[in-house]
Amino acid sequence: MKIARFSTGGDPRYGIVDGDELVVLVGDPMFNGFETTEERVPLAGAKLLAPVIPRSKVVAVGRNYAEHAHELGNDVPDHPIIFLKPNTSVIGPGDTIVLPPDSHQVEHEAELAVVIGSIAKNVRAEDYADVVFGYTVANDVTARDIQKLDGQWARAKGYDTFCPIGPVIETEFDWADARIEARVNGDVRQLGTTADLIFKIPELVAFVSRVFTLLPGDLILTGTPAGVSAFTSGQTVEISIAGIGTLSNVAR
Amino acid sequence: MKIARFSTGGDPRYGIVDGDELVVLVGDPMFNGFETTEERVPLAGAKLLAPVIPRSKVVAVGRNYAEHAHELGNDVPDHPIIFLKPNTSVIGPGDTIVLPPDSHQVEHEAELAVVIGSIAKNVRAEDYADVVFGYTVANDVTARDIQKLDGQWARAKGYDTFCPIGPVIETEFDWADARIEARVNGDVRQLGTTADLIFKIPELVAFVSRVFTLLPGDLILTGTPAGVSAFTSGQTVEISIAGIGTLSNVAR
Repeated sequence: MKIARFSTGGDPRYGIVDGDELVVLVGDPMFNGFETTEERVPLAGAKLLAPVIPRSKVVAVGRNYAEHAHELGNDVPDHPIIFLKPNTSVIGPGDTIVLPPDSHQVEHEAELAVVIGSIAKNVRAEDYADVVFGYTVANDVTARDIQKLDGQWARAKGYDTFCPIGPVIETEFDWADARIEARVNGDVRQLGTTADLIFKIPELVAFVSRVFTLLPGDLILTGTPAGVSAFTSGQTVEISIAGIGTLSNVAR
Repeated sequence: MKIARFSTGGDPRYGIVDGDELVVLVGDPMFNGFETTEERVPLAGAKLLAPVIPRSKVVAVGRNYAEHAHELGNDVPDHPIIFLKPNTSVIGPGDTIVLPPDSHQVEHEAELAVVIGSIAKNVRAEDYADVVFGYTVANDVTARDIQKLDGQWARAKGYDTFCPIGPVIETEFDWADARIEARVNGDVRQLGTTADLIFKIPELVAFVSRVFTLLPGDLILTGTPAGVSAFTSGQTVEISIAGIGTLSNVAR
């Protein structure tokens, strides 16, 4: 099931994608469940929004594909290296990535994102599915020059608009071997598969929930495959994950 | 004016400290203003809570006192090094700091915290006061061994309960030269003054708001003076800032 958050001019609502329509829901799927209604909205007439704005945090994982770790000159870590992006960096499909004047090298990072569906602490790897609501596509936008300058990654990865997510949450996604791709103006820059994740979804949920209490709507970004590259003003960045969809944003 | 968030058994409320009483407020001071009521509650009968739970983020600044940068073997940076702590790490006065089994070296870091009072982006240093609601005391609790292991600081500083704040927000605090102190079971470990901040409050608000949109209730932790040290289960950690108060927490 693909769930979208959308607006037709008024407040954000949730809907289930059914062909070229959205079946409108009442309720907030991650927080208090939902019910379907009789109302249907044409997808073409709806603006899709970030499928969730986390109330608490976006946890992200560095160096979780071996080839990407190597392309930046790093070893593969023996445990997940985690960092945080603020909820103020989250934008939706079609929203603009604003290039900050502080950076001259802003890069895309195509990532599978886990959407948390319940309060979660010290989750065992084998129980991970109990706390996962679904999966979406994310772009862990990174000011590479700032990342190198600071050492710490919070600024380089935390600028406003640096966390595009969407277009939908897939609740039945199979993450075992899904194609993941980043394109800049149609040119393929990253092409990988989630089969190459060093730390898999169950281990990540277990590791992260050992540190933080996860709240409904929190995200875990699971790392990026090789091929990260810079993009500039006016270019369109598309991130696709087979089985979920394509997230497209223009930079300015 | 000292503003506390407190409970006498029911929902959290805000109050102004007046001698040994709290003048009860209606409204949420950081979000929609407040009015005083006729109701007064004895301070002794109120449990003080974290004065705010940020809806978005706790931004923190590393190496912002020269002697502390040096004690950990680091140079003084030429710009603020910022990182994020999640809102799930925030606890209040008297709450327990839970020592995670992953770490064998959990340390206190006494810090002055800025409480943001309005939506703030690209604030000029000279306008910083327009977006500051007040100031509180924070303990930037850090698993030093995890910090060294990861390189990134989000895990080491982000564990649940690793951001005690309080006991109150002082809205008229003078940060030019305030004594800041950390004690473990009464033994003074850190003793400094905010006069030694490398990057001062106006510069920090300007720098941070250039990266992130700040929201009402967000915090900026401004760095810690020299003397950080480990504490263990059963010990009491007190952080005092002259003009604001003392934040006390026991570790378990």
